Formats: sequence, C-alpha cells, structure tokens
Amino acid sequence: MSGQNPVFIPGPTNIPDRIRHAMNVQTLDHRAPDFIDVFAPVLADLRKVFKTTSGTPVLFAGSGTGGWEAALTNTLSPGDKVLIARFGMFSHRWIDMCERLGLEVEVIECEWGAGAPADLYGEALASDTAHSIRAVLVTHNETATGVVSDIGAIRRAMDACGHPALLFADAVSSLGSIDFRMEEWGVDICVAGSQKGFMLSTGMAIICVSAKALAAAETAGLPRCYFDIREMTKANAKGGFPYTPPLNLIMGLRESLDMIFEEGLENVFARHARLAEGVRKAAAAWGMELCAHSPELYSNSVTAVVVPEGFDATRLINHAYDTYGMSFGVGLGEVAGKVFRIGHLGSLTDAMVLSGLATIEMAMKDLNYPITLGSGVAAAQEHYRTTANTARAEAA
Amino acid sequence: MSGQNPVFIPGPTNIPDRIRHAMNVQTLDHRAPDFIDVFAPVLADLRKVFKTTSGTPVLFAGSGTGGWEAALTNTLSPGDKVLIARFGMFSHRWIDMCERLGLEVEVIECEWGAGAPADLYGEALASDTAHSIRAVLVTHNETATGVVSDIGAIRRAMDACGHPALLFADAVSSLGSIDFRMEEWGVDICVAGSQKGFMLSTGMAIICVSAKALAAAETAGLPRCYFDIREMTKANAKGGFPYTPPLNLIMGLRESLDMIFEEGLENVFARHARLAEGVRKAAAAWGMELCAHSPELYSNSVTAVVVPEGFDATRLINHAYDTYGMSFGVGLGEVAGKVFRIGHLGSLTDAMVLSGLATIEMAMKDLNYPITLGSGVAAAQEHYRTTANTARAEAA
Amino acid sequence: MSGQNPVFIPGPTNIPDRIRHAMNVQTLDHRAPDFIDVFAPVLADLRKVFKTTSGTPVLFAGSGTGGWEAALTNTLSPGDKVLIARFGMFSHRWIDMCERLGLEVEVIECEWGAGAPADLYGEALASDTAHSIRAVLVTHNETATGVVSDIGAIRRAMDACGHPALLFADAVSSLGSIDFRMEEWGVDICVAGSQKGFMLSTGMAIICVSAKALAAAETAGLPRCYFDIREMTKANAKGGFPYTPPLNLIMGLRESLDMIFEEGLENVFARHARLAEGVRKAAAAWGMELCAHSPELYSNSVTAVVVPEGFDATRLINHAYDTYGMSFGVGLGEVAGKVFRIGHLGSLTDAMVLSGLATIEMAMKDLNYPITLGSGVAAAQEHYRTTANTARAEAA
Amino acid sequence: MSGQNPVFIPGPTNIPDRIRHAMNVQTLDHRAPDFIDVFAPVLADLRKVFKTTSGTPVLFAGSGTGGWEAALTNTLSPGDKVLIARFGMFSHRWIDMCERLGLEVEVIECEWGAGAPADLYGEALASDTAHSIRAVLVTHNETATGVVSDIGAIRRAMDACGHPALLFADAVSSLGSIDFRMEEWGVDICVAGSQKGFMLSTGMAIICVSAKALAAAETAGLPRCYFDIREMTKANAKGGFPYTPPLNLIMGLRESLDMIFEEGLENVFARHARLAEGVRKAAAAWGMELCAHSPELYSNSVTAVVVPEGFDATRLINHAYDTYGMSFGVGLGEVAGKVFRIGHLGSLTDAMVLSGLATIEMAMKDLNYPITLGSGVAAAQEHYRTTANTARAEAA
Repeated sequence: MSGQNPVFIPGPTNIPDRIRHAMNVQTLDHRAPDFIDVFAPVLADLRKVFKTTSGTPVLFAGSGTGGWEAALTNTLSPGDKVLIARFGMFSHRWIDMCERLGLEVEVIECEWGAGAPADLYGEALASDTAHSIRAVLVTHNETATGVVSDIGAIRRAMDACGHPALLFADAVSSLGSIDFRMEEWGVDICVAGSQKGFMLSTGMAIICVSAKALAAAETAGLPRCYFDIREMTKANAKGGFPYTPPLNLIMGLRESLDMIFEEGLENVFARHARLAEGVRKAAAAWGMELCAHSPELYSNSVTAVVVPEGFDATRLINHAYDTYGMSFGVGLGEVAGKVFRIGHLGSLTDAMVLSGLATIEMAMKDLNYPITLGSGVAAAQEHYRTTANTARAEAA
Repeated sequence: MSGQNPVFIPGPTNIPDRIRHAMNVQTLDHRAPDFIDVFAPVLADLRKVFKTTSGTPVLFAGSGTGGWEAALTNTLSPGDKVLIARFGMFSHRWIDMCERLGLEVEVIECEWGAGAPADLYGEALASDTAHSIRAVLVTHNETATGVVSDIGAIRRAMDACGHPALLFADAVSSLGSIDFRMEEWGVDICVAGSQKGFMLSTGMAIICVSAKALAAAETAGLPRCYFDIREMTKANAKGGFPYTPPLNLIMGLRESLDMIFEEGLENVFARHARLAEGVRKAAAAWGMELCAHSPELYSNSVTAVVVPEGFDATRLINHAYDTYGMSFGVGLGEVAGKVFRIGHLGSLTDAMVLSGLATIEMAMKDLNYPITLGSGVAAAQEHYRTTANTARAEAA
Repeated sequence: MSGQNPVFIPGPTNIPDRIRHAMNVQTLDHRAPDFIDVFAPVLADLRKVFKTTSGTPVLFAGSGTGGWEAALTNTLSPGDKVLIARFGMFSHRWIDMCERLGLEVEVIECEWGAGAPADLYGEALASDTAHSIRAVLVTHNETATGVVSDIGAIRRAMDACGHPALLFADAVSSLGSIDFRMEEWGVDICVAGSQKGFMLSTGMAIICVSAKALAAAETAGLPRCYFDIREMTKANAKGGFPYTPPLNLIMGLRESLDMIFEEGLENVFARHARLAEGVRKAAAAWGMELCAHSPELYSNSVTAVVVPEGFDATRLINHAYDTYGMSFGVGLGEVAGKVFRIGHLGSLTDAMVLSGLATIEMAMKDLNYPITLGSGVAAAQEHYRTTANTARAEAA
Repeated sequence: MSGQNPVFIPGPTNIPDRIRHAMNVQTLDHRAPDFIDVFAPVLADLRKVFKTTSGTPVLFAGSGTGGWEAALTNTLSPGDKVLIARFGMFSHRWIDMCERLGLEVEVIECEWGAGAPADLYGEALASDTAHSIRAVLVTHNETATGVVSDIGAIRRAMDACGHPALLFADAVSSLGSIDFRMEEWGVDICVAGSQKGFMLSTGMAIICVSAKALAAAETAGLPRCYFDIREMTKANAKGGFPYTPPLNLIMGLRESLDMIFEEGLENVFARHARLAEGVRKAAAAWGMELCAHSPELYSNSVTAVVVPEGFDATRLINHAYDTYGMSFGVGLGEVAGKVFRIGHLGSLTDAMVLSGLATIEMAMKDLNYPITLGSGVAAAQEHYRTTANTARAEAA
C-alpha cells in the first residue's frame, strides 16, 4: 500500500494535490456565522453537476450506500413496492437493501453486462395499472460490469404509461465523470459519493432530491434519523447541519467543484470518454471482450475486461498488486474471477492510464495470458496521440 | 474562519500535525490483501481505549449521531421500551431519536446541569418487574452542560434489581479524554466519534459492542442497512468493509491511537483533568458559576460557564468570534444564552488554554461583564504552573 | 519540539496553513516553458514589498547570511572600505563577515540597545573626503536588541555630504513586517529572508538590488559564483535560474505575497505595531525595561526585555521551553543572559501573543521573578481590546 | 505545471508522500536544546550513505552548486591549481566556477559521452612532479550525458604516482542512487544535494569532508563566509548551526534516510540499476544510441538518448511537455538538441517509468520519429517482469 503508483480501482480515485490540500484543513467552527458563506455556495454549485435547477443537494457523512438508504427511507413506507433491474453487483446490493428495509421489490433480472432494460421497465410499469410501484430504481453506472444505462429511456418508459412513481438513480460512479441530467431525465433522487468523480476521500454521500421526493419525505413511513432529509434540508437552509458536518470533505468539495468548473463539466466528460476509449482499444488489442454487451453500454469511468477462458481474473489482480504494486478492480459476484476492472475516473492523464495498461500487461504475461507485451499500450497510445489536440482544443 | 487560533468548541478539536499528515493520505486500495494489516490492529487497539477485552469495536463513516442510531437499530425492535434521563441537549436529542425510531421512551427528566440520576434509574428499573425495558441509555458526558455522569452507578443500580436490559452509553465527548470503563461498568454499546478525544476530522462513528448486544442484533426488529453491525462485523472479521471505508480517517485513527498510547491513556486523562481545572479556576476568579451542579459532575472535556444575570452568552460568543477570531461553544436548548462553553479536549497545551481564557476575558470586558482582565488567566496560570512538574512526571 | 504552541522566536515565524500548503508542492520542472509564468510575477510583486519601482529582486537558495554575502561580494573588491555601526549581534556578525571577506571595516561602536547613529555615520562620511568608503551598511532591524533604525536618516546623512557610497540595509527581520522604503531611502541593496515577514520556511535569501549596485557588480573584484547577481539576473530575465531553484519556497512566496497584498501591506505593518505595543505594555506591567533605549527605536517585530538584576534570562528561556513547550529568543552576545526576546512577526493574532505572554509569566513566576501573574497579560488585553475595532477597520 | 504526472527530469525527483509530510513541518526552535536530538543523528547517518566512517557530513542551505563552491573555497587559495576533466555540462560548469574563483585550472578535454579518463588524470598527475596540483576534481555522474565514472580508478591513478592532491567528487546526481564509496576511494570532499537521491525539495547542499580536507580548511586562502566549513562544523559539534538552518529539509532528510535504510542502500542501488536497464532496453528497441559511449559508463540515474539525425531533441521535449504534460530533460551545451534525457532516480516504480516511456513514444511518433509505438515499452516491460521477483527478493 505504497501510494506511489496511481490506483485503477473504480473509485476511490487518485486524489489531486489541490484537493488533498483543501481537505487538509485545521478544525473550524461549523457553528460560526460565516460557515454559511462556504457551505451555501457548495450546495448551490452542486446543482450544476447534477444538471438541475430545482433539485436540492444534500450531503451526509457516510458512503454512497448511505445515500441509497437515504433515498429509500425518506420517501417510502414499509411494504411499498419498488421496481429495479439487477445486472451487476451494485444493483444487486441496492435490491438487497430494499428487501432488508421491508420493501416489496419487483426485480427485473438481466444478464450481468446488460444495461437497464427500458423496455422491460416499461412493460412492468404499464402493467402496474394500480400504480402500486412507488419508486423506480436504476443503476446509472454499474461499477461491477462497466455498464452505463440510459436513464432518459427509463423516464420515457415511465412517461409513456403515465406512471407516477418516483425515479431514483444510482450515479455514484458516474456523476462528475459521465453526463447525468437530473432535470431533463426527471430523476427524483440521484445518489453519488465523494470518492468518485469528485475526487475526494471516501466519507460523504452526495445526493440530490427533487421537489416531488421532498414532498414524499413528509409522509414516508420508514424510520430514519441520521439520514433524515427533512432535518438536513431544514438545517441547511439556515446554513447549518443537524449534527457535526464533515468539514474537511466540504472544503474539499469546494475545491473539487472549482476544478470541475475550471476544466468545464463537458470537458471533464470528454476527457473521461477519451481516456476510456484508449482502455477499450487496449482490450481489443489484447483480443479480449468487455463485460459490457455493446458499445452504447460502455462506461467511461470503468471498464470490465473479460479474461480468456481458463484464466482467473482475481489471481491476475492479486498478482499485479503483489508484484507491481498496482491496484485494479476485481470481478465481483457473478463475474468474480471472470473479469478484471480498470477504473479510469477522476483525476487522470494519458500517461497515468498508460502506466496502468503497461502494468496489467506485465501481469498478464507473467500468468501466460495470450497477449503481446506493449500491444494494448500501443493501441491506447495511438488513440491518445491522435486525439490529443482535440482534447487540448476542447479543454481550452 | 482563519484557522490561526485554536478552537474552544467542545469538538471537533484542534487537530495535531501528526494526525493531519496521517489523514492526508493518497488513495489506497481498501480491497487489497494487506489492508487488513492496517485495519485489524486499529480495531484491536481501540479496545484498550474502550477498556474492554471482549467488546467489538465498529467504525462507521458517519457522525456520533449515526453511532447512536446504530446502537438502537441493531438491538431493538419497534415499540421496545428504553429508559433514559434528559439533562442536556445531547440526551434530549437521543431521546428524540428513540421516539422517531418508534421506540417507547421512559424519560427521567432532570435539571440541565444535573448528572444522570442513578437512584432514579434504579427506581424505574426496580419497578419494571416485567423487564419491559430493553435498554438503558445514559449520556456519559453531556457536552451541553459540561456534566460527566457515573456510569458505574447506573450499572450498580441495574444489578441491584437484577435487571437484564442492555446498557448503552454516549461517550462521544468523553472517550479518550475522560476515563471510560466499558467492561467494568458492563456497558453493552458505547458510542464515540472521530472528532473529539481521537482528534480526527469529523466523519466516523466509533462504537464498541458487547457480546450481549451482538446477540441482540440477531433478533432486533428495527430495519437498518448502512449501520448494520452484523454486516460490518462479518466483513471486518475478514479484514474488509461492507462498503468503501473512510480510509483517511482509519489511517488517522492509527496515528491517534499511537499518540494516545505514547502519552499513556491515564496520562491523557490526567492532562485533561489538569487543563479543565485551570478553566474552572478561571471561572471562579470571574465570580461565575458552572452549569454543572457539583464538583463530582465537572466534565474534564468541556466547561459550561453561566453568565451573570442580564447578559447574553450567545452575544458574547459571537463577539469573541467576530472580534478576536476565536470559537467557543454556545449554550444550547434550555441553557441557550445563559451559558457559554469552553471545550478543552483533544490536543491542547497550557498555553493554548490560556489564550482561550485571555480572549474570552477581552470579549467579556468589551461587553461590560463585571470581570477584571487577567483575573481568570492568573488563576489558571497559578494552577498550571504549580502542577506543571506533576504533569511532566506523570507523562514521563 | 512539538509544534502545538506558537513560537515566539524572532523568526522563523509561525507558518500559516495557506503557506504550508503552497510550499508542499510536488516536483515541477523548473526548466519548463511555463515556469516563467509563476516566477516572473513573484519577482515583479516583490518590488511592492521593497517599495521600489526600479530595484531588481533576486532570490538565492540560502539564508539571510547568504544575502549579506551576496550584497558584499557582488559590489566590492578586496580591501574596499565599508562603514557600519555595531549595536547588536547581527550588525556584529555582518562586520565579522566583512572582515573575513578581506574588506576594510570602519566600525561605529554603539551601545547594544542604541539605534544606528545617523549623526556618527554622517561625521564619518563627511570626513571621508577621498570617498574611500565604498559602502555604508546599516542593520534596519537589530533582531538581537529589538531596535529598528532610521534608514532615511542615514540616507540624508550621506546626501548631506554628497557621499557616493552604496547603501546596504539588513532588513531580514523587518521586511514585510515593518515599513521599509527602498526607493525613498535610496537603498542600493536590501537583504531579507524567507522565514521572517514572508512567513516561509528558512532557506531563501530575498534581496533587492538598485541599478547602481548592479553596475558595481560589473567591476567588483571579490570572487563569487553561487551568489553571483549577474548570472542570476541574466537567467531570471529569461525566466530561469542558473541552477536548480528552491521551487517550494518560490511557490510559497507566491502565496505569501498574495496574503500580504490581500491584507494590505500597510495593514500588515499596523497589525505588527499593534501586537508589538501589547507586548511592550506587558513588559511595562512587569516593571521591566526594554533593551531598546527609547520608544522611537522599538521594533515592531521583536521585543527584547531586560530581566531584573540577578536573574538569568537564558535560564528563563530554557525553563519556558522545558516546562511549557514554548520557544522565546535568548539574549545573544553582549546581552546574553540579560534579555529575553519575544518575537512577534509574521502570522500572529492577539490570542497567540497573549498565550506567549501568559506562558512567560508562568516561567518568570516559577523562577521567582518579582511579577504578578496575569499582569502583563491584562495590560496587553486592555491594549488589544481597545484597539480591536481600529484594527478591523484598517484591515477592511 | 500540473503535478499529476511523474517528472522524468534528472532531478529534482518525484517526492514521495512520506517525505512531503516530513518536510511540511511547522516552525520549531532550532536553538532549542533538543534540536541536537534530531540533527546529530541525521549527520551521523549520512555517513552511511557516503560510505565513510571518518568523513564529516555538512549541510548548507543552498544547491549542489553551493556545495561545489564550498569544496573549493574551503580548501584552496587563489591561484591554486586544480585538475579536472570536461565531458559534459556539469563538469564544464565546475570548471567555470574554478576559473571565476581565481584558480588555475588544468582541463582534460574529453568527448561528451566519455567518462572521466583515469589514464589521462594519471598522466597529468605523474607529470606534476612539483605537486602543484592541489585538487583533483571529478564528476562522478555527468547528468548531462548520463555517464557514471570510475572514481576508484582516479584514486588509483593518484596513488600510482603518489600524488598528494585532494580528491573532490561531484556526486550530486548519484549519491543515494548509485554506489559511492567515499572512504574506499579516498575522496576528500563529496558534493551532493537534497533534490536527487534524497528525494527532497531543492535547497540543501549535502557534502562530506575528509579529515585531510578539514585540515586544508585551516590554511585555505579563498575567502568564504556563508559556506565556511570551519564555522559550520564548529557549530554542528554543539548541535547548532551558524545561521538559521533549513529545518524542513533537515526533517525531510531524516525521513529520507529512514526510507533509504528501510529499503536497504544496496537495494536502492539495485532498484535504480533495474529501472535504468529497462530504459536502456527501450532506447535500443527504438533503434537509438545512448550518449554514453559504452555500457560501463551507463548511469543508473539518468539516460541521455541520442535522437536520429535530422530531429531536434529540444522540440521533442517541448512537445511532450505541451501535449502530454510530462517533463523530460533537454540536452544541454554541446549535446543540446541532439539528446533528450530520461531521469530515473529517486522514488520510482516500474509503472512510473513505463508511463514515461509510453509518453515519449507518443511524442516521438507525433514528430515522425521512426519508431513503433509500444516497442520501447514492450522491451522495458519484458525486462521489468522477468526481473520483478529478483527485485522483490533483494528487497526482502
């Protein structure tokens, strides 16, 4: 655990120095009258990242998992029905949480590697003429399979049958890295976290809540205290927090937002797309498939690569860590051992990605994978160098 | 919010450089096989601070409030009865949480400034011959009034009538600053946080759970996911976390434990006692009463000073902040405006405390309090200088 | 050496977090084409602090002592005559350096505690009709005695007799804390350092050179390489450095200049004056004299306090350090044991100064000094609180 | 100047977090009685790195250039004769310094890319029967050409003719990265700096002085003050410094020494050799020559690669910086435009080096160099992966 090499887990990300400095803050008084001067603009600016003008951003000391729980417990009552597709570990875990919270869960089972099936969501909603489904849940970016789903299509499916359910999206590993449009897509709660696109340390759930979801919080029957959005938004409105806030993460978020806006949010997305494409070209050069079933599903924040038959991806990841001191993502759940994952989100450069590709190539060669050293690197290099000027121009 | 002056809020505390450096860690892979080498000893060493050999320490990304919730939701079922005394804002809030979670709460109302009344706890328990009280809750250190309570006496009261209820203690603002003996006192869950005696940033609930409480978690009916102790301890046992852990706080906690053990836990308590006594002597020199009703209740981590009739303590605190850039604690709830609080926990020296006393004296004089400049400082100086060698000797 | 308490040595100063972060920079390429974008504005902005429009700021990795050497070796030849007054340890050391470099030194001997005697300088210059004196050296702020001298008066004395010598000023412990006017006073080289008014770590000599001194560098006969101003200015003009530059200090200096300009240079001086006056009032309350002979000589960056007959100031300082972990300045040279020094320059607040006064009071009491605990603190408190609004208004 | 990518200039090096933290120290009192507890072991431990038991390590706030000057001015008198070979920019500059200091310099002119010619040194010394040569100067590692020279051979040449001259070595870019044996080779002054093998920020010359050189300092006639070794060693002996020391660099050096000893000095050398060999294999795969004339001259801290006829290496370096944000070393002096340099010293991993190779490949391809993308990377990968276990085993 040396910290010299960049990490290629799909979050937490490599933390840039600006943000490390911003988080490294001596204790300040969160009850001081000028705390609001720092805090209020952070909340306001978060809206731009969620792409909403009317949503209410909310921060909890916690992880993205806490954000999931906040979404559910603030809007639903025991026994309420939710609709959700399972196509990876994180959608699977959200389903598990729903069940443990006493919700009735209608699961659309999909292959791991598929995206959220707007058509099947639509069928289920259309057949729910009693509108017993209270919330539709979608994992925007399945970190386990490297699949990004079309939330807009889910919204259209809901609208097509006039279904009034709330729409919740898990954008933990996409927000700030891949385009997310809360308002356009009519998302009621979007859940994100500090340690992915925002490049912060782990420890803060960052969610955004629509007026409709806020209204639902008034009547929701699930118990909640720590994650109670009503208390939080009431305190936030006065510039405060209902309990001691994670000041260092809030200060870091200020810097993160500044960095994102300086680069330009769309440029951040373009950078992620460009870096991701290089990784995909490397995988192709190795002759390996991606876990994501088709190009429109390819995530720009994480790529899950399927290893050849007979190889153990987990062993590969462990070998890369033990021998070269570099961390990649293991396969989880159904794809454990079958895929390894390259996270490419947050603060990254061409050179950093190439170091990851070069390292996993060595690890594969060590374990007799049928690849040629340098082949994936070369494919990525060609992509990066031929798109470098574009990247610069767009960034300018 | 300049950060030049020390803060005198009763937490978060001033963060020493060693801990700031330890928390300022580049992202490491929490799924790496050697994460356990860091994490397991942290959990093990926490037991020494809780003074338990059999308890299970548990860390949640969250605040102390999350720790309260974890204690309740993991061990109780809707409608379960709990017994708790209200004698300050934090016991008040814990009561509020119990109610919102659907528990039946038997409240022992006390004056703010009193301690937890072991006799009244005993009476209530003795009369509960049906043993319908499932948990006894006590605030070890009431941060709002500067009152420390005798948990051992509560335990004796429970034992006296053979009551089988669980015993929970809120030691958020005492653990690591004031002696706490989980095993000796038979505490089933002790709740603490990162930003007080551990001198870390806010963002981690640090709790410890007895075997009896762990057993209760198997049958408890309150829903919980994020704060589920069963999942956490299962993952911890394998060196992992059920979701992304707050790595920087865990690294910081490692350093915090090292610092505490280097100084010696009993020496840490003695240092707090000595610094607190200087503050109390200053208050006496100003001719002011403490909110705590009697000396055995005086907290060594925070002192709440009652301002003279006709003065507004909140205005005083705001004036000190605006004019001298120094933060003290406001009065909360019933004692709002009537007391101001001087936090003296965590990483503090004589000189730092004296700067706080000198500053609040200036602020009081500015607002025409009947005090003599330098009087409180002189009283504290006399205490510190005459006990300095003892402090050194004990630290050696 | 714990770092918890502020230091009260007269430099290096307490380093504010903003500057610590700015200096904590990962390696960047100082030969990169955009290094000039950082470096050139730093040099340009330094002129404002030196109060010159035509001088050339020069930075050397080194200490203020290196700056003295640069001033001498770049402008003088072996055997050249210099005129300088000795009235403290730092003027003494500069004299010693002149002698070791083979210069002829005409020393005006003064009492330690006196200022630079413009009248005696004038007499010496007037009698030097052959203009054999090539340089006049003056210590602007004698750190050893807490004496600030009137450089403008020296200039007037030079002008009065039309003496063409160069004028060098040691402003190591004054620049950026006490008004210094290079252009108005006709100073040819002003020597400062990173670790005083600029609040940086030690390690960079910061000097400013007039056109006249630059011209002298073309013919000066003393050998110099590392501290050669010609090479440095030639490289600087192209945005570079003749050898590897201390990048972290340059980055820190950028932040330091930003902080100084944000506060306002004149406000920085006013803040130092106000804090210094509080310290002097404390000394008066203790019934002690200052080493500086008269009020117009009182330095606003350091106060040297004379201890009563029969007491050993060095023992006092050691006691304060050993017992209370706080550093003050010892007496040096002729006043060793007779004075202790309180540095009050750089990033300081009322509260920090009061902590220093309270601590030295405890140390004095421990050693049976005839003082009343709290007396000096009270005097300073009264000064600070009655001038607090003015300070705010001026800062606004 | 983003700091995201590692730098591949041949120093300053990438600074590991442990050292960044160690250097990020709040001001401490360097005159405090316990400063010696930190400082003395640093000096003592430096001997292990210089491989001497009798030499005296000396630290100056300054750069390696200051170290050169200290070596010369402390041991020689105006007009003294020195013997030195010129075979790169840094030997050239040292010669230039000798001349500017008024020494008589006998230069052995060599091709850039050659090593220090022990035979020619031997001839010159043998013919100096009057022993008018007072010092023999050798550049151990020519940073400009990537050439390491055999200092032991120079010593043998001196001994062969019984020449009593002092022997000075410039090991700025080798000490702590490439084996250097001060005692075995009879080196009288070895000059190094903070920002290379010690991985610190720039700003401290680190030299080591033999007893013979210390004796020479008693009679040497060149003036020196700031860099006076007599004053320094006298102050050091009492645990002090003759002027304000660069505390942050001394603290960083403590950590640096700890890191070096934890890894093992010989393992540090082996790591550098292994990483360097990968770089050389990459150059070979590109079909390019090294500036160093033969394998025994290959430096393990920096490789200078000759670009094909008709290409401009400076343009290449600028392109890599502008387009990919990565810094390499330009060619200097005689080899300007003809070579580019890859620094591979200090804190580096396989993955970091591969990112440098991959990036320079992209830059070369962009500028139509006749290379195949990925070819150099593949050659280095093959070397690194086949030697990875050895590296581990040796490190263990």
